[in-house]
Amino acid sequence: MSLLSDTIAAVEPMDEAAAQAAARRLDSLTKPLGSLGHLEVVVRRYAAIRHDPAAESGSASILVFVADHGVAEEGVSAYPKEVTEQMLRNIARGGAAISVLARHYGHDLRVIDAGVAADTRGEDLPGVIYRRIGSGTRNFLREPAMTAAQAQSALEMGIATVDEAADGGVTMVGIGEMGIANSTSAAALLSAITGIDAGLMAGRGTGLDDAGVRRKVEVVRGALRRHHAVLHDPLRMLAALGGFEIAAMAGVCIGAAARRVAVVVDGFIATAAAAAADRILPGLAARLFFSHRSAEGGHRLALEHLRARPLLDLDLRLGEGTGAAIAISVIQAALAMFHRMATFAGAGVAEKL
Amino acid sequence: MSLLSDTIAAVEPMDEAAAQAAARRLDSLTKPLGSLGHLEVVVRRYAAIRHDPAAESGSASILVFVADHGVAEEGVSAYPKEVTEQMLRNIARGGAAISVLARHYGHDLRVIDAGVAADTRGEDLPGVIYRRIGSGTRNFLREPAMTAAQAQSALEMGIATVDEAADGGVTMVGIGEMGIANSTSAAALLSAITGIDAGLMAGRGTGLDDAGVRRKVEVVRGALRRHHAVLHDPLRMLAALGGFEIAAMAGVCIGAAARRVAVVVDGFIATAAAAAADRILPGLAARLFFSHRSAEGGHRLALEHLRARPLLDLDLRLGEGTGAAIAISVIQAALAMFHRMATFAGAGVAEKL
Repeated sequence: MSLLSDTIAAVEPMDEAAAQAAARRLDSLTKPLGSLGHLEVVVRRYAAIRHDPAAESGSASILVFVADHGVAEEGVSAYPKEVTEQMLRNIARGGAAISVLARHYGHDLRVIDAGVAADTRGEDLPGVIYRRIGSGTRNFLREPAMTAAQAQSALEMGIATVDEAADGGVTMVGIGEMGIANSTSAAALLSAITGIDAGLMAGRGTGLDDAGVRRKVEVVRGALRRHHAVLHDPLRMLAALGGFEIAAMAGVCIGAAARRVAVVVDGFIATAAAAAADRILPGLAARLFFSHRSAEGGHRLALEHLRARPLLDLDLRLGEGTGAAIAISVIQAALAMFHRMATFAGAGVAEKL
Repeated sequence: MSLLSDTIAAVEPMDEAAAQAAARRLDSLTKPLGSLGHLEVVVRRYAAIRHDPAAESGSASILVFVADHGVAEEGVSAYPKEVTEQMLRNIARGGAAISVLARHYGHDLRVIDAGVAADTRGEDLPGVIYRRIGSGTRNFLREPAMTAAQAQSALEMGIATVDEAADGGVTMVGIGEMGIANSTSAAALLSAITGIDAGLMAGRGTGLDDAGVRRKVEVVRGALRRHHAVLHDPLRMLAALGGFEIAAMAGVCIGAAARRVAVVVDGFIATAAAAAADRILPGLAARLFFSHRSAEGGHRLALEHLRARPLLDLDLRLGEGTGAAIAISVIQAALAMFHRMATFAGAGVAEKL
């Protein structure tokens, strides 16, 4: 047995009775029946995930996993590889978009070095948690990105990270990432999972030009050919094409299901992690909240494959958990209405004719 | 001269130089160029509206206008007419959705009785501002809803309300409403403005059944026939088909343009007010933020007519300014990132290759 297999075994079905109880309360509140639209779906699902008809909201935490990718050497990113470590510092020091959003909303922010090429442990970066699986993955165009042991370690690191959060009273986590070239890894995983060609799944990422996108598409196609024999096996697929931060986010999705923690998936790369987790634990995607539809073209296709309706559609393509941070605030607003609105009976308001 | 004509005369063009300065700062921040997507459009437009390249954010206020509608006697709402006054009380006492959201977000909430049938001035309702244009409008299927003087008073009341908010340091207002049967008034106005048939513009409102929708469509068509001769004149159109709260919201849109206050339009009914204001002051819609695409079918068509991209798409159809309250929080998050993120130079992060 392993933490991964134990965790999978501990996952129970969602609590449909809790969702139904929440639905009854929603219908008693002073608003036209069903008029909170998709936010009513969100409240019911939160109750089902949490096994809690009262849908109580604890604290929310944004988990940002940072790692490097060997495939960056194929020239698949608009930014140099060093930006991964530079942005790790920037997030830790409060200057990145997610740093600002987490402070703005009062979300707890945990930044995890899952395997950045440069080791910054001597730099005393505030709040960074070091759970390095390695110093960047290998170039998956030429060999598997990770060993099977590394992939399992990264998954279990994600499980341990959400376990800690749950132990501290966190009821909802956002998952986000930073890692130069990781949209190439995400595109490869999502092409493998959905069967959709890389020409539709690989996009501009952080801002590739047309020639860069063509190169990226060829890299993904080449990688899928190279690793074709293992793509039927979710763990070996993840090892071949994934990244440390992607595997860790997949682990969070699995661990959260076992701990009844709500997960809010950020953008394209976090969605690849969610899709990989859904391959490992089929049906898992139905338990996740998808925060937004990103400007990365393949994201729409990936969300459709997962039958996911995102909360926001703002053409974001920043990553870091920024979309998740905003979406969590929308979910918290929905829960606030659920908890605090008056009922028809209590407020003396007439019901529907 | 009048407050209305003075206000219209005081409106200056938006400040495109401020928008360009904001765009330059956006491009200097540590994120892939353009990666905040639509939120970058929002920040630039906010700077242009405010004539402020720094896009500083003051406080936000939700203005909820409440009024009754004579056309309710045609059986066009799923709820009895008394719900308008009951919900006025509920909003004031903190039990309505908008009451909860305003507290949750820390938005200032101003509830204005613009002409509820029942006069609640003796009830000591906390925080309600009484600016009653009348005790409900007349039934516009049979006669104009308002006199020309009432329509002008309601518009000017909206202007005065946003003037007061601006004087108090408010830089962004959300406009919302409550008023049984007001989606019939909104559908009539939007049919008149867009030329789109009532069969597409009039929807279920708070939850009409199929027979109710057919009745509502016939009421709108009948009203457009009755008032056909005045529909070319924006003020007479508003008087014929509008409501006190709708005219007041149109006044807020006009007054806000003169005072450089950002307006966040709520749902279908507030959009009808915005469209009416855009008829009075052509081009005004380009200065407004539209908070969400509501589940009311005609709303999509109205937004397309106004070339508006809403911030959210959550199938809300509650009104009261609820969508505006959520959208304001998203705009505030965008402004926080704009103000507080590090620059590439400041954080030592490499720029695009």
